[in-house]
Parts: sequence; structure tokens; C-alpha cells
Amino acid sequence: MSISKPSIPKGTRDFGPAVVARRNYIFGIIRRTFEKFGYAPLETPTLENLSVLTGKYGDEGDQLLFKVLNSGDFLKDVTADDLANEDGKATRRVLPKVAEKGLRYDLTVPFARYVVMNRGTLVFPFKRYQIQPVWRADRPQRGRYREFYQCDADVVGTDSLLCEAEIVLMMCEVLNALGLTDFTIKINHRGVLRNIYQALGDEGRESDLFVAIDKLDKIGRDGVTKELLERGFSTLASERLFALLAVEGSFTEKRQQLQAAFGTATVPTDSPDSYKGLQELRQVVDFLSGFGFEQFQNLEFDPTLARGLSYYTGCIFEIKINNVNMGSVSGGGRYDNLTGAFGLPGVSGVGFSFGVDRLYDCLEELNLFPEGAAATTRCLVANFDASSMAAMLPVLRELRAAGIASELYPDAAKLAKQFKYADGKGIAYVLLQGPEELVLNKFKLKNLRTGQEQTLTLSEVVAALA
Amino acid sequence: MSISKPSIPKGTRDFGPAVVARRNYIFGIIRRTFEKFGYAPLETPTLENLSVLTGKYGDEGDQLLFKVLNSGDFLKDVTADDLANEDGKATRRVLPKVAEKGLRYDLTVPFARYVVMNRGTLVFPFKRYQIQPVWRADRPQRGRYREFYQCDADVVGTDSLLCEAEIVLMMCEVLNALGLTDFTIKINHRGVLRNIYQALGDEGRESDLFVAIDKLDKIGRDGVTKELLERGFSTLASERLFALLAVEGSFTEKRQQLQAAFGTATVPTDSPDSYKGLQELRQVVDFLSGFGFEQFQNLEFDPTLARGLSYYTGCIFEIKINNVNMGSVSGGGRYDNLTGAFGLPGVSGVGFSFGVDRLYDCLEELNLFPEGAAATTRCLVANFDASSMAAMLPVLRELRAAGIASELYPDAAKLAKQFKYADGKGIAYVLLQGPEELVLNKFKLKNLRTGQEQTLTLSEVVAALA
Repeated sequence: MSISKPSIPKGTRDFGPAVVARRNYIFGIIRRTFEKFGYAPLETPTLENLSVLTGKYGDEGDQLLFKVLNSGDFLKDVTADDLANEDGKATRRVLPKVAEKGLRYDLTVPFARYVVMNRGTLVFPFKRYQIQPVWRADRPQRGRYREFYQCDADVVGTDSLLCEAEIVLMMCEVLNALGLTDFTIKINHRGVLRNIYQALGDEGRESDLFVAIDKLDKIGRDGVTKELLERGFSTLASERLFALLAVEGSFTEKRQQLQAAFGTATVPTDSPDSYKGLQELRQVVDFLSGFGFEQFQNLEFDPTLARGLSYYTGCIFEIKINNVNMGSVSGGGRYDNLTGAFGLPGVSGVGFSFGVDRLYDCLEELNLFPEGAAATTRCLVANFDASSMAAMLPVLRELRAAGIASELYPDAAKLAKQFKYADGKGIAYVLLQGPEELVLNKFKLKNLRTGQEQTLTLSEVVAALA
Repeated sequence: MSISKPSIPKGTRDFGPAVVARRNYIFGIIRRTFEKFGYAPLETPTLENLSVLTGKYGDEGDQLLFKVLNSGDFLKDVTADDLANEDGKATRRVLPKVAEKGLRYDLTVPFARYVVMNRGTLVFPFKRYQIQPVWRADRPQRGRYREFYQCDADVVGTDSLLCEAEIVLMMCEVLNALGLTDFTIKINHRGVLRNIYQALGDEGRESDLFVAIDKLDKIGRDGVTKELLERGFSTLASERLFALLAVEGSFTEKRQQLQAAFGTATVPTDSPDSYKGLQELRQVVDFLSGFGFEQFQNLEFDPTLARGLSYYTGCIFEIKINNVNMGSVSGGGRYDNLTGAFGLPGVSGVGFSFGVDRLYDCLEELNLFPEGAAATTRCLVANFDASSMAAMLPVLRELRAAGIASELYPDAAKLAKQFKYADGKGIAYVLLQGPEELVLNKFKLKNLRTGQEQTLTLSEVVAALA
């Protein structure tokens, strides 16, 4: 073995015990909520065939896929000509010859692949959740990693807007359980955006409009106007747009104002789908009312919410934690053709995802992790010498039998060192049996947080720690 | 998007809901046991630098590492000459130019890297467990995958044999909790193997001896003898070997017989380490007695147990489930120089690992998965029509508030279809409110396993399902 100075790839992280415990606290709340709503776990491989991944995330996505070299003699089909030909296409020419697998880029495409491969045996509607890491060869920066977890829940095989309403319930349940209270769930519908586009008089390109609207938060009205003009929209269209976006009030009031505005504009009214967006949003709100939903103050109809439009076709969602300066911690929406790329068209579904790294940062900034979330061993049993060590073995056995995570310091080191160990590991209690306690057949239990010491029998110790 | 027929790479697997739930049942028992003994969770990245991985697993291991292509123009440093030069070394020449990262091959090397990188802040002894997938570009076959989970627990920074004794306890606790009873924990010590080697009169090479001994189970005494002769051992040495391995009886009896045999053979007695192996095994057994260990019938001192000797230096372990035809489900041992490859010599540690795929197969073969282990949703609420759907929303809310995983069928489909859904998903109960029950303000609760139906109030339903 050669000696190497160890490092980890940029954009990746080691998670030490305290961080894993806190992350598991978040994962646990998300998992329990998904399961309570009937979503079942799915796990797909880290390695996917590039034929599955490529072309699903746009050109930029294809660039950001991590590709895995074929094993063995990966160069066997590559010729010197492939490289010598200086047409700038060598990489594109060689890639399919040296790599046929890549790393999972998101959880949605593997989910679609799974549904198509197992469509004969799955029962629909199929409700699955998936909590696994994904990899992107993005430039690492603060808060952006090359390896990070996604937590997705999706249901496919039903158009029912019950699913959308339950997504709002799940979002609230997770955030409430995490102690986050000051949040806004923004909701919109692709149909509303289409109506807005139609109301502008059909100028320019639809996607240009949405790209510009999506930036409203960042660049303001003037910036968006400038961008619209650059993209070929008229001043009139821009003015109409801001008139439409200026709707105010409750969910219902905004819906009514928009519907009225669409009616006086150029939105065609002859199609049954004309106001599908507004109608579906209303149905979602009705379902929520039926559930006795009590957090309407956290739900905002935002006609400017656009998200990744190439993909979504119905309701779209996004959550912002208001008292933390951070992007959205969750988002999702309905899509009509997720499995079309794998030859199974017409499967409607809706899904959403939590960003666990951002949730973690929010909880940390707001000091919302409960004390126990980082806990490891509850009790360290001190080791005085070989004979004390032998005497402590049945004690240790009894603690563990009561479900108390415990350990005996493995060597008869100085007590100061043993206490330092407990402290460094975040252990709450140290149990000691020195000569005084031994005579009494008792133990000294020290709480390292409060400094409090008690002299107790073993069964009292178990009762105090259990 | 182009349409592609989806597939997954050979040697990888999708885990559907029922399988994930059963795997999580196993992971949960392992995790709780590790934590009860004071081991804390660590997670390391999937991507490691090849400088960390290469040279740690032998030449064969280097071949089996999955390498990840550098992102962007990965060919930028590769010349046509690299390929044109037909000296058979093109792959070796090109590899470092196109790939600097690889996939985690095991959990031990990343653990050693982590310890070295964080040695300034960790408290020692450092006890960590790690449950994560690893990847090997092995030829896939029955029971051998290219992507599979390992479950490791290791402690570094102490020589105490308490750790070895607790490994035996943890192994038993996990197997007992899984309902596996007919198992054997084989234990040996590298020092015993060294003594055996010395007792043969120092002929041949040590590693040749151990490779041959390791095959005793498979090829029998005659096969091992043949192989020893081929490897340059004398007939006398082979006879001495089998005399030594013929020890019988309890742990203590075998130990005493071996010690006597070593004493009359050529084992040097002037070194304090002469019988270290036997002495340490005795100490481990004494610790176990001190714990009140009651499963000595499952613990066997096997002087032929060799395992990966390049690595281990002290006690070694292996578990075999006796009533299932399968390799070992767990193994481990003590090592003296795990972190040496990263520039931190002299750190002693001991660890072990469970093979979750094999445990899964054992439980399945012996029908030991508890019924609840595959459970998902507990109750499906039937959907008759839009007005019944609205009436069921508060019911659903109440069930979930009581922690009962429940779902409302999202569409007013035929009841037969809804029952088929419940059945396909393994849901135990269906709750219905037809016109008759509605009049009574009651519900019909049907147990799909027994076929039993009860007419109950909502609070009775909650009590029955909670």
C-alpha cells in the first residue's frame, strides 16, 4: 500500500455521528408522514444505464451526469482516429464507447423507468416515496453539492385532485413536526399560466414568458418588463401581464379576480379546459376544507409561480421558509407524461420533494433540533481497573437489556480521560462504582449536563435512565 | 426525449415496497443493536478519490473499482499517441487522465480515511457503524451483485478485548432478534494460526498454509494435503497440521489441547507473545462469562478459520447459519494498521460486518419475516362517489391523527377495483360507509385477511386499528 494524503472529492461530504443523527431525525419525520398517507418506499440502483438517463434532463443535464467507465479494457473500441480527428467532437464520439452507465441524477426518471418496467405487476394508482442520494457534476458552491439526498413522493395512475390536496397536508405535517411555523406554501397551476399567456394576445413564446415571470422575485417588475421587451413582447402585453399579476386578497378573491380578467381578455371561452387551472385550484381548496385544514394562512395562490414548466402540466407547489434567507425547501407538481419517454404514454401523476440539506440548515439556524436528535450513547460506565471492569459487565448487560444505549470505557484510563470521552461524544450520563459505592452495593450516576450526582441502586439507575 | 426501452444495469436491483420494508426491518435491528452498544452512525460519500481507493484492495480490487469519468472534456489530456502506441498499456496510461474518482468499494477504507482526516477532533476510542451500499465491477451471479449494502461496526483506538467480547454479544443479539437460532459463531486468532505455522517447522510460506487451510470445508483433508504438498510443504508438516486441527471438545478443552501441542512442538516459548492468540481468546471468553453470556453453545473455537489474513492481526470471527445452505452472514476481526496507508500508523481496531442480502435470504427461506415487516398502508377508505368522498375526508384525518397509515381511494371506481388495489398493496383493512352505515353514522370495517366484517363507530374503528 502506498501512503496517500487522504481527501474527499469536492462537492461531497462526510457526515459524522451528530450530523447523521440530526439528518435521520428529519428523514424519520418525512418517512413517517409519507407512510401515514399511504406512500410506500421504493429504492432504485445508484447505477443507471445512460440510455435511461440521457436526454431526460435537457442538454445541460446531460453534461451534468456523472458517467461511469466501462470495466475492464474500456478503450477497446476507441481508435487513435477518434482522437486525432480534430473536429472538436472527440468527446462526443468517444463517450458512448467508454461509458454505458451513469449515476442517478434525480429520483423521478428512475421512478418512471421502474413504473414502466413493472407495469404488469404494480397496482395503480401507485403511490411511492423514495429517499436516496443523487449526483450532479455541477460546480460546487455554498449549499450546492455534487452528492445530495432527495426525498420524493409521487402517485401515478390517477387524475384525482385529492392527491394535490394531500400534498399540501403532507407539506404542512412535515414542517409542523419539524417545528417550522413561519412558512408559505405557494400554489399555482400550469393552466393559469397558459390563461395569462393567452390574455396577453398570444405574442412571443410561452416559455419566454414563464422564464421572465419566474424572475419576478429576483429582478422586480422593471427587470421583468425589460426582459419581456427583449424577448419580443409588446409594452401593452407587459402592462396586461402586471395587471393580471396584481390580484390581491384571499385564495378565493385572487381566483375570482383572475377569472374576471381572463373573461374580458382574449382567453377563449369555448373550450371546456379554458379555466381548468382555476377550477382545479378551487377543487384542491375544497378538498382541504373538507379535511378541516386549519392552515390556510400558510397557503398562497401565486399566479407568478412557474417552476420547471417543460415537465409540469397541472398544479405546481413550492415552499418557502419565511424567517430564513434560503430558497425553497420543497416543491412539486402534476405531470401528464412522465413515462412517455419509456414508451408508456398517458400516465398522469403528481409528486413533490423535500430538500433535506435546506431543511437541515433551517432547523440549525432557528435552533429547532431537539436535544435528543444528536444523541448517541446515553450512559458511559466508568472503568477503574480490571476487577471493577469485570464487576461492571453484568451492570452493562442490565442497562442494555432495558434498552439503554450504554458502553463501558474499554480501558482503565484516568477518570478525567473517560469524562472527556463522554463529553466529546455527547453522552449525557456517567455511571461510577468506586470503593465507597461498592461497599454500599450502589452506584454514582452523574448527569454531565447539570453536574448533578445521585447515589442509586442499579434498579434505580435503570429507572432514571430508561 | 427519445423513447428508450428501459432496463437496469446487470448486477443492480430495484427494491419495491415490500422488499424495502423487509430490508428496513433487518437494518433497524442491526442499527438498534449497534447503537445500544455505543456505536454511532457515520456516512461517507459514494464518490471517493481514486488516490484513496487504489492500492488498498490488491490488484484484483483495483480492477473491480468502478471509475467515474471526469466531467466536461474528459479527453483533454489524452493524445492519439496514448492509443496508437500498441504496447498493451493504453488503458493503464489513459485511466489516470480520464478518471480521478471512483465508487466506494467497501466501508473500511473510507472509515480509515475519515479517521485520519478527522483525527484532531474525534474522541478515541472511536466507535462507529456504517450502513451504506458499495459497488464492485464483479461478474454478477446468483447472490453476487455489483451494488449491495454493507453494515459495518468498528472501534479504533483501543486494544481492549472487551470489544471482541461485545462483538460476539452484538452478533448474538442481532441474530436472536431476527429469530435465527441455529447458528455458529466461529472464532479464531491470527496468533493461533501463527503458532500452527510455527509448529509445522517453518516450511513453505505462511500465506500458502492459510489459503490451503481456508479450503478445508470445501475440499476436505485429502484436498488440503494435496495442495500443501504442491505448495512445498512436507508430508510430515501436513500430518502435524491435521494433528493440531484435530482438537476437540469445549472452547477451553480445545485451547488447552492446542497449548499443550504447541509446547511440545517447535513454537518458541521465549517471547511474551508466544501464546498471545490463545491467551486473548481466553480473555474474550472470560469477558463473555462476566456478561452472563448464555449462548456458548453457539460459539465455536475453530483453529482452521483463516479469513482475509493480509488485513487481520488478532481475533477473527465468522457466522454461519446452520440450517440454511449459504456462506457466512457476518464476519470480522482485529487489525493493527488500518490507517497506516493514510499516514497514521499504530491505530489498533476491531470490526465486523453483516451481509444484509444473505440475512434477507435466510429469513425468507426460514419464513422468519414477521407479518408486519412488509406492511404499508393499514386501512384503505373506500370511495363511493363525490359526496361520499367529501364525507370521508374528516374520517381520514382522524385515522391519520391517531397514527394509522390510511388512504382514501382517489377515484370513485368500482368497489371490486378498490378491493383489488388493497389486496395488491397488502393493505389489511378496508373501511366503507355505504347508505346503510351512513344512516347509522357508522362504518363497516373489513379485515381482508380473515374476511371478518364489523359495523363500528369511528372511535371504535380507531381503537380497532391503532
